[in-house]
Order: sequence, then structure tokens, then C-alpha cells
Amino acid sequence: MLIQGLEGVVAATTGLSRVDGEHGELVIAGFPVEELAERSTFEETTWLLWHGALPTARQLAAFRSELASHGELPSAIVALLRECATAGLDPMAALRVAVGAISLASDDAVAIVGMVPAIIAAFWHISHSRDPLPSRPDLGHAANYLYLLTGETPDPEHVRALETYLSTVVDHGLNASTFACRVITSTGSDLVSAVVGAIGALKGPLHGGAPGPALEAVFEIGEASRAESVLRRKIETGERLMGFGHRVYKVRDPRADVLARAAERLYERAGDMALYRLARTVEATAVRLLAEYKPGRRLDTNVEFYTALLLHGLGLDVRLFTPTFAMSRVSGWIAHAREQRAANRLIRPESEYRGPQGRHWVALECRTEAAA
Amino acid sequence: MLIQGLEGVVAATTGLSRVDGEHGELVIAGFPVEELAERSTFEETTWLLWHGALPTARQLAAFRSELASHGELPSAIVALLRECATAGLDPMAALRVAVGAISLASDDAVAIVGMVPAIIAAFWHISHSRDPLPSRPDLGHAANYLYLLTGETPDPEHVRALETYLSTVVDHGLNASTFACRVITSTGSDLVSAVVGAIGALKGPLHGGAPGPALEAVFEIGEASRAESVLRRKIETGERLMGFGHRVYKVRDPRADVLARAAERLYERAGDMALYRLARTVEATAVRLLAEYKPGRRLDTNVEFYTALLLHGLGLDVRLFTPTFAMSRVSGWIAHAREQRAANRLIRPESEYRGPQGRHWVALECRTEAAA
Repeated sequence: MLIQGLEGVVAATTGLSRVDGEHGELVIAGFPVEELAERSTFEETTWLLWHGALPTARQLAAFRSELASHGELPSAIVALLRECATAGLDPMAALRVAVGAISLASDDAVAIVGMVPAIIAAFWHISHSRDPLPSRPDLGHAANYLYLLTGETPDPEHVRALETYLSTVVDHGLNASTFACRVITSTGSDLVSAVVGAIGALKGPLHGGAPGPALEAVFEIGEASRAESVLRRKIETGERLMGFGHRVYKVRDPRADVLARAAERLYERAGDMALYRLARTVEATAVRLLAEYKPGRRLDTNVEFYTALLLHGLGLDVRLFTPTFAMSRVSGWIAHAREQRAANRLIRPESEYRGPQGRHWVALECRTEAAA
Repeated sequence: MLIQGLEGVVAATTGLSRVDGEHGELVIAGFPVEELAERSTFEETTWLLWHGALPTARQLAAFRSELASHGELPSAIVALLRECATAGLDPMAALRVAVGAISLASDDAVAIVGMVPAIIAAFWHISHSRDPLPSRPDLGHAANYLYLLTGETPDPEHVRALETYLSTVVDHGLNASTFACRVITSTGSDLVSAVVGAIGALKGPLHGGAPGPALEAVFEIGEASRAESVLRRKIETGERLMGFGHRVYKVRDPRADVLARAAERLYERAGDMALYRLARTVEATAVRLLAEYKPGRRLDTNVEFYTALLLHGLGLDVRLFTPTFAMSRVSGWIAHAREQRAANRLIRPESEYRGPQGRHWVALECRTEAAA
């Protein structure tokens, strides 16, 4: 029986996250996402996924320090990022190339996670003709990332907002990148190979590539009074509104609420509150109009809409949105690779052949294009 | 319903190959593998998979020439291979790293396929402290690969044997690497990302990593009279015999027959016939003993056994076996990526959560290891 896209097929058991699309619930290693994401740091969430429990103070200090020890990139990776910039690669392609080259130094989970922010930030500076900044091992993973991008010690509100984002999107069942990671791991392959495959999947616009466009409509609309007319025109001309709807969630994506609250707090204390209010108006109008034009389709606001608002509020360029998503998700990928290894079975589905049969060889000189 | 390893799940339709595990049949784009592999060149088989028909003489000449135009590697890739050699990477890891960097130059299918032999051979020489050889665009893809490895214009019997090998293993349903390629492609990602993910999967010992060990038992046995006693001891001590059994084929793998005939011809005309006879004796003895010790398990000779014999007969080091497999399969991966794109649906299965629920946040200073 052919199952297109494997929709509804359960391909693995996991203790990492439970996605309940019917009720709009997401549990991460036992914690409702709302409970975890507003309190946890990236290091705590990563430890939780890798070890099944929150770290003690001693474990956390050791883990933070180990992670921070990988902030200085091997020179071969920096050289490769320079080649990527010269070739004009986009940040996700550069991330995929550079993470692949982590094999030159290590196949260790902590090294992979530890190097990702430095790779993203180094490529960002190099591709703007600047030198990369050295990591600040005194800062946490999230704060160091903001430091590496801006060169300034980040505002604590910015750090807290990024921590919340990183914990919110760290894992989400068998999404395509996580699934690619498990397929690769199932052959007995190494961790870098699995993570590189996952980055390759996340790079695709149908998976990790949409948080940028979600905000573009907000900027295009510009002021609340124009929201309804602009959105009606978009829907009526068949344009797809980015940031609404999700294959798994039939109700509102619970991550959207967590990120909406984090964005509200961020914009209230350290941002452009007018933009936040505009975005909420655009969102409410879009949801209302989508219900009107596409009844029964359940096109609620998804995680991408608030990802865009939150990361924009942190001062991140739209081209850094998907790499920042990868910086979080890499912890989830590695946790899935470990789960896959612990109870491995080669992931090898079947295909149904619908091509010709019984062909016979024709000598080269007798072939014609028409006969093809 | 959880389906471990997705066994029996049909995840895609394809016109590229039909694997009939019950009857031991393999069809490649309409041709029985026996019909195709003994006659076709790598370029013809690749064209067949990509275009659905064998190329005319004019198409073939143009395609050969385009493929050969990518034989000279960009200097950044050669520099990266030097780093891979310095770091002591194995050839499959180096291939994965270097193919990832093809993005620096191209995302074109012909460029990817065209560069793979040059990458494998360049890394081989560099890791033996020699300079890579320049490609010979006057030679076909298979012949040039042998030339790049040895520095000598290859014997036509060697070229024919390699052509047969490359056509035999070019595609095989939704094996794990091909499936990884389709999962990555299903997100709308690029061709290099999909191929890199596939190489990462092929790198795993449960997929592409076993042709080496299949020949080791033959060398260990050394002479036909020892075959039965050595193999009995191996089976009785629980050692797994490499080269026998396949998850999909319940009868003899049809590729094994094609490669056995090609190996016989190769060894007869240009090789060590004593080794060939020994290998056949070991094979026959192993099949008989496996039937005796593990009745009902259908552990017939698989493709890896004759891959090892044939590639050894070509003078290839065992560490080049899996990269040479990749050199063929890359054409199949790209054909699948194109099929996936032509009728895409995001491949996103589900997972079943079996972890804790309803956990509550505990402040850092209150956490204990015991409570974890």
C-alpha cells in the first residue's frame, strides 16, 4: 500500500517529544512546551534531551563549559567558510558544508552542537567582508551566539527570548530533517553524517525555509488599517500566506503561543512595540480571513509566524532565521540519532514500480530518439 | 501503527527500478539487470535513468563529453581533501565532505556525477602522500576512474567489468541511502544536499559498508580444502558470514549472478583464476552450511560477495569498495531526486511517544541526580 509522504505512518518510538496535532499539544521529554521553554536554557534543554532529566547545577556547569570549549573553529573550517562566501552560498548551504567538515576535528555530539553558532556567525561576518569574532566562553550558548553576531554583550531580555526560542523548536517528532537523521543513523553511520543530512533537509523551503517570508507580509502591510484589504487581495489572487497552517497541527500550534508570549515580552521591554501590535493585528486578520475564504481548512498561525517576529526582534537578519532554527534543532537531531542507535533497525521502506518492463537492449547505432 | 524500519511500507512510486525479492528479479528502467549490465556503459545507464531511454549515439557522445568536462576538481575541493587526509578520515568520510563542497562550484547533476571519481582518486593519492593525477577526458567515466587510481590506461576487460558493476548497483528501490535522498529532496532542498545525505547513509556498515569483509573470509580460508572446516567453526562460534542474506531478497540476489559472470570473465582473461575458483568454493560451501545450520533463513549469496571479488580483481583496495559503490549509486540517487521533485509530497512520518508526561519545572538549586 502506497502512503504518500508517509503521512500517518509511525516510523519510530521516541521519548523526546510528543506532538499531539489534534489537541495542539507538544511535550518535550515530559515537559509541556509552555512549562519548559519559558524557563530553560539551551544547555538545560539539550541535557534534558540527551540524558532524560534536567541537569543538576554541577552537571550544567560542566556541560556549559564543555560546550563553550568548542567555540573556536578549526582553521580548516574557517578557510572553507571563506570559500563558501566567495562562491556566494546562502547561510544554510554554508552551514551544511562547514558542519560536514567538522569530521576533520571530531565526531562528538558536544563538538557539533558547540561549533554551530560559531559557524553561522563566522560565515555571516566573512560574507560581509568582516573578520569573525572570537567566542566568549564566559557567556552561555545563546548569549554567545548573539555576541558573535553583534560584537556586543547582549541584553538579558534578548538572551531570554532566544533561550525560549531555542527550547521551543528543539524537537518536534519525526519532522523531515529528524527523520533524515534517523534514516542515515539507521545504517550505522556517524553523527556528523546524520546531522549534515538533517541540515540538508532543513534547508528545503518546505521544512525550515519559511520563517523569513512570514514576516514579509507584515512589513508590506505596514499599518493595521491596511491589513484586511492587503490580505484579502493576497488570498483572492491565490497567493499563499506564509506562517499559517501546519501538516500536523489541526488546531493552533502550541509553539506559536509560547513564541507569541516571548515576543510580546521582548518587544515590550526591549523592542518596537508598534511592530509587535501590527503583527498581532495582521495575524488576527489573516486567521479570520482564511477561515472565511477556506472554511474547514484550519489554517491557524504556525510557529514560523512568531519565529519571524521574535528573531527579528533580536535584530537577526531574515537570512539567519533558518540557521538559528538549525542551531536549536541540532540537539534534537543528535538525541534522535542516539535513540535510533539504542534500538536500531535499518530504515528501508519499499517502492512500487510503475515503469516499463521487458525491454531489450538495442545496439547504439540502431537507437533513434523517436524509439525512446 | 508502528512499523519498525518501515519494512513493507511503500513510500514512493518509481520508474527507476523494480526489486522483486520473492522471485529474485531486478528491473532497471525496464531492463532486466542481466540484459542491461552486461552491455551498458555507466554513461548509458545514467542517461537511461535520467531520461527513461537509452541515449542515441549523438546524445551519448554529448553526455560523455559533458561528464568528462568535470574531471578537474576545483582547487578548494582538492585543498579540502588534503585536510581530510591530514585528519586521517576514511575514504567515505572524505567523499562525503568533498561532495558537500561541490556546492562551491555547482548544483548540477552532471557536475556531481562527473566529480565523484576524481574526488575518490584524488583522496586516495593524497592520503598516500602522492599528487592526484589529471583526468583523461578521452576515456569514459569508468575507464578514467581506473586510470585516475593507477596512472595506467586500463585493460579493456577491466573497464568492461567495472562498467558491468556500475550498471548492476546503480539503483535498487528505496534502499536507505536512496530513501534519505528522497526525504531530503522532499523538503525542496538542493541536489548536493540530497546526495550528501545519501553518501552519509551509504557510509554506514549496515548499508554500503560490508563488501570489504565479504572477501576476508576467502583470504582467511586460503585453499578450497579448508573451506568447510573454517566456515563451520565461524558459524558455530556465532560469527556472522558477510556476503550472505539480504533483507529484501528471499531468494538469490540477481545482482550476484551478474557480478559472478562478470568476475568469472574478468579473472579468466585478466586475473587470478585460482582466487576465483576458491571464492566459488567458499561461496558454495557457505550457502550449503548456512542452509544446514540455519534452515529456513534463506541466506543466499548477496551482491556484496561478488562485488568484493570483482573489485578486488580490478586491483581496487578494499577501502575503495564502498566509494566505488557510491560512484555508481550517485546516478540512481539523482534520478530519484528528480522523480521526487516531479511529484513531490513532503516525507514526514510520525513517531509514537513513549516517554514521561506532565513533568514540572524544578529550579536549578533544587535538582538532585537521584530525582532525575
